[in-house]
Amino acid sequence: MKILLTNDDGINAKGLTSLRESVKEIADVVVVAPETEQSAVGHAITLSDPLRVREVERNGEFIGYAVSGTPADCVKIAVRAILKNPPDMIISGINLGANIATNVIYSGTVSAATEGTILGIPSIAISLTTFVSPDFSFAASFAKKLALTTYENGLPDGTLLNVNIPNIHQDRIKGVSFTRQGNSRFREEFDKRTDPRGHIYYWQGGEMLFFDGDGDADSGVIRNDMISITPIHFDLTDYKFLEELRKWKIK
Amino acid sequence: MKILLTNDDGINAKGLTSLRESVKEIADVVVVAPETEQSAVGHAITLSDPLRVREVERNGEFIGYAVSGTPADCVKIAVRAILKNPPDMIISGINLGANIATNVIYSGTVSAATEGTILGIPSIAISLTTFVSPDFSFAASFAKKLALTTYENGLPDGTLLNVNIPNIHQDRIKGVSFTRQGNSRFREEFDKRTDPRGHIYYWQGGEMLFFDGDGDADSGVIRNDMISITPIHFDLTDYKFLEELRKWKIK
Repeated sequence: MKILLTNDDGINAKGLTSLRESVKEIADVVVVAPETEQSAVGHAITLSDPLRVREVERNGEFIGYAVSGTPADCVKIAVRAILKNPPDMIISGINLGANIATNVIYSGTVSAATEGTILGIPSIAISLTTFVSPDFSFAASFAKKLALTTYENGLPDGTLLNVNIPNIHQDRIKGVSFTRQGNSRFREEFDKRTDPRGHIYYWQGGEMLFFDGDGDADSGVIRNDMISITPIHFDLTDYKFLEELRKWKIK
Repeated sequence: MKILLTNDDGINAKGLTSLRESVKEIADVVVVAPETEQSAVGHAITLSDPLRVREVERNGEFIGYAVSGTPADCVKIAVRAILKNPPDMIISGINLGANIATNVIYSGTVSAATEGTILGIPSIAISLTTFVSPDFSFAASFAKKLALTTYENGLPDGTLLNVNIPNIHQDRIKGVSFTRQGNSRFREEFDKRTDPRGHIYYWQGGEMLFFDGDGDADSGVIRNDMISITPIHFDLTDYKFLEELRKWKIK
């Protein structure tokens, strides 16, 4: 099996290094990842600027390629220009921070896996649900097992797996839950400040507002010390409302 | 009715100006749009840089605010920091170029409307399906009518309208079709070049590959000279495959 690894935290991120160390036990791996951190870029692609590709070695070992673009750019350029043959699978991660509920749409990690899916390659996005004191070892080991299972079972055309793993000792993890995307939302705040020249600027921040109805969703199960695996696709059509909408008269 | 207008082509784009001229006949309008073009940014948000907001006048008339960020940033900062009260509706556009099929996920225009929907505000994304010789007048007039109809009927929580309008004379438009998102895909090509210092770089480009099965989808009906209106939401869960996935054993 040949696996392409990428992420949105950049080619030097620890989560990607842990993932690579684990997955290379079961597959030929190549990394094509952003040169710099690309968090919250969503599904951005780079059309107005050229892309640069740099070969990366570490301790004398060839690791892969750093790209001056977004996670979606990395997957596109890997498959269309860098690699001789498409990989059998793409794994994006391990992200520092959860990619759950409504926040999935801002995720560079997930967008890379989405891009892989668009290109017809089974893809997985993996995130560790913390920003502090991450321990990627269990998540990396789980990624390896899930890659094997996914390779064996296959994924439907157009669907990827979005995986979130609690940052706790593996003995405390209560199991795996196959979930839907939750409705929890980010409540943004803008911190208004004045710069040294007297001009106003804003910092965007905020916090996740957990929605009570999300107990069985990704955002719920990770708070209950379970691994969440959500199948997601990129057909955004609201088929239910489409029936209703067909009755509209636009005057 | 109070309507917030935004786009991804930037505050000075002609499509936005046409939209504003039309919609201000039926509502109080305010523009909060990117300072510069933000095409293909997808649902990116700006977390690592401060955001600047600039008041914009044109011919002595106050137009709105230019923001040094993405379309999603514009909607967030408008609702959370700039406007005293949330608008009754958000319209994003009129985009220069179609936002159809798989390409919807790259769209800054659609992401602004998605952000409005997340914030609980009925939202519409409008695009003109051309990159050359655009005539926004009919699309702007249609936007006004659709805004009134949408205000009257309402939209379900979490669902927005993604509208694509052919760039042909209005007498040739065959009607409105309520559609699903198509499966047509962008086939990317990377043009490999050498810069004056001898270094390799790539330009990302390509073309839309229209999928034959898309006759009744957004990507199909616009080629048949119809307006396409697709209801889209941001619950990306593949519920059908979720049932299958629950049978998986991860060893």
